[in-house]
Amino acid sequence: RAMSSVARQSLKIGLVPADGIGREVIPAARTAIEALGSDIPKPQFIDLLAGFELFTKTGTALPEETIAALRECDCALFGAVSSPSKRVTGYSSPIVALRKELDLYANIRPVVSVAANPSGKPSVDLVVVRENTECLYVKQETIIATENGREARAVRLITERASRRIGRMAFELALTRPRKHVTIIHKSNVLSVTDGLFRETVRAVPRQEPGKFDDVTIAEQLVDSAVYRLFREPEIYDIMVAPNLYGDIISDAAAALVGSLGLVPSINAGDNFVMGEPVHGSAPDIAGKEIANPIASIRSAALMLRRLGYIQGADRIDNAVDEVVRQGTVLTPDLGGKSKTHEVVDAIIKRI
Amino acid sequence: RAMSSVARQSLKIGLVPADGIGREVIPAARTAIEALGSDIPKPQFIDLLAGFELFTKTGTALPEETIAALRECDCALFGAVSSPSKRVTGYSSPIVALRKELDLYANIRPVVSVAANPSGKPSVDLVVVRENTECLYVKQETIIATENGREARAVRLITERASRRIGRMAFELALTRPRKHVTIIHKSNVLSVTDGLFRETVRAVPRQEPGKFDDVTIAEQLVDSAVYRLFREPEIYDIMVAPNLYGDIISDAAAALVGSLGLVPSINAGDNFVMGEPVHGSAPDIAGKEIANPIASIRSAALMLRRLGYIQGADRIDNAVDEVVRQGTVLTPDLGGKSKTHEVVDAIIKRI
Ligand SMILES: CC(C)[C@H](C(=O)O)[C@@H](O)C(=O)O
Ligand SMILES: CC(C)[C@H](C(=O)O)[C@@H](O)C(=O)O
Repeated sequence: RAMSSVARQSLKIGLVPADGIGREVIPAARTAIEALGSDIPKPQFIDLLAGFELFTKTGTALPEETIAALRECDCALFGAVSSPSKRVTGYSSPIVALRKELDLYANIRPVVSVAANPSGKPSVDLVVVRENTECLYVKQETIIATENGREARAVRLITERASRRIGRMAFELALTRPRKHVTIIHKSNVLSVTDGLFRETVRAVPRQEPGKFDDVTIAEQLVDSAVYRLFREPEIYDIMVAPNLYGDIISDAAAALVGSLGLVPSINAGDNFVMGEPVHGSAPDIAGKEIANPIASIRSAALMLRRLGYIQGADRIDNAVDEVVRQGTVLTPDLGGKSKTHEVVDAIIKRI
Repeated sequence: RAMSSVARQSLKIGLVPADGIGREVIPAARTAIEALGSDIPKPQFIDLLAGFELFTKTGTALPEETIAALRECDCALFGAVSSPSKRVTGYSSPIVALRKELDLYANIRPVVSVAANPSGKPSVDLVVVRENTECLYVKQETIIATENGREARAVRLITERASRRIGRMAFELALTRPRKHVTIIHKSNVLSVTDGLFRETVRAVPRQEPGKFDDVTIAEQLVDSAVYRLFREPEIYDIMVAPNLYGDIISDAAAALVGSLGLVPSINAGDNFVMGEPVHGSAPDIAGKEIANPIASIRSAALMLRRLGYIQGADRIDNAVDEVVRQGTVLTPDLGGKSKTHEVVDAIIKRI
């Protein structure tokens, strides 16, 4: 089914707060969605379990029921997972598993600064389009004992199929943007075969649909110098398309440019499902203090709705967030403010 | 042999400018070394070939003679290599090969800002200690054709032995610094086996020599959030020890903080050999224009000499560079100046 063309009676939204501040920011996103009223079909929220804490209690980080329930939903919001401080036998990250399980092959992360005035141009305005199912994230790891000690190996998988579909996603997105510029991130000077395949396959995308992407310009950058240039001249980037791990690192780097990870949303998108997720982690140091920035999650809800075709609802959320950030009086500590999570949520809701 | 305890009659230094601006900055470093006079044994320079351009002309990026000659040298300086703009059969990066060939297992990259006044504290003062022989750089890649298209795989190798020696290098270095703080960079929330081994092995280093590292404090960071925090609070880092690829990315990220890649030096160090190398690349866009910043290479020469035990010579070079940077009147365009490479070299030599 095309994601935007279904007329729904209600919108079934799975909520997976998982660990730490995930439990504070996902309820915030829910409140923002509820505030939209008739701009979207009546939302129906399904609370679902996952996470490292769940694992420590039950031995399972991602229950079968959570996956099964998500398959029945129209979309979902995921919070954040904590990382074990030691190697824990049997534990495996539920978010990585969910992305694969639901074939959410694109992690789309817009990193945009809020301009000082409503008609101004943001100084950073880029989208990281991260491949979300392979690279080192296939987690095929082995370890052996030798006379010189242990040796561990991980497989980095790059397929033509996954590179093509993420490439197409990047080019499609580029068409919706004023600059229509795609930068391919790779390290083919070292990984000539795997990153060579990624680079070559993404470059070949426009040839598969002749004419369609004629307006899109293409550049490329080695991942190390891409990070360097991101800090020095972020304005050179529009769409950055990257294999999984580089995309992970680059999106955190880009987040530093806009003031806080607490501002940066994402969606995990496949052809049939979309799951919003703030780019930040579970932040155990501030969990429970009610000072987590809810904006990344609220914007993730907007991104999710936008992908489902509910543009007006998404715009209302984004505009409300822009206003609150621009005004600058009700902000959480990560942005230099003194407000609590719920105060920021209230300020946003008032403007939706 | 211990690197610093040999009384040498002369110092045999291999010079491998390789590609692009490597050919402009390595001669600059040579001039700086020559200016030291009797602070070091009489230098004897050996000019050696390598690089992508050499490959396009001769089919070899790293001639056997270059490797053999380097084995006869006391130390070396390497410039930079260009990256092919397409996949080129038979080409493989000579710098990656040299690091392995000469077992230069540690890539040490100090990233330090120059304080406004000579007695001031630099705002960024960290050292990236990058494992230099394994991780994805083992370049074991394969590709197969399937019915769904091509599939490429690369091996990421992490051994206990290499992790232990890079860990020890990091802890030894920490002992020489006021803060004595080591941050281990990894991604063990995804790569629990390979990065789990790295993290665990580095953490175990102090236990191998009880007492010795008691003053060293240890922290750790996931690579994505390490890059984020590098930009937000660089002062939290002292020594950052990382597997090969993360170290590559992190050192470029750190370089952005001090104003230019053109300032950041490195050494590739093993137990028996040391090779200085600027962190920047071959910069084909500015090659031949005589505006390449020679400072990264000149500082790499100083680092190399320091590692060989010629502290006084190294200090003289570094102090001269500090003065020139602080004065700010003779700088290349990457630092906002208008000077040519040779003018910066002259200004430095005058102060050595
Ligand atoms: C929690 C972790 C597995 C995850 C990742 O590496 O993808 C996170 O860093 C992210 O960016 O969503
Ligand atoms: C040229 C390239 C192979 C090299 C690397 O990745 O190590 C470079 O980026 C560096 O950092 O020295």
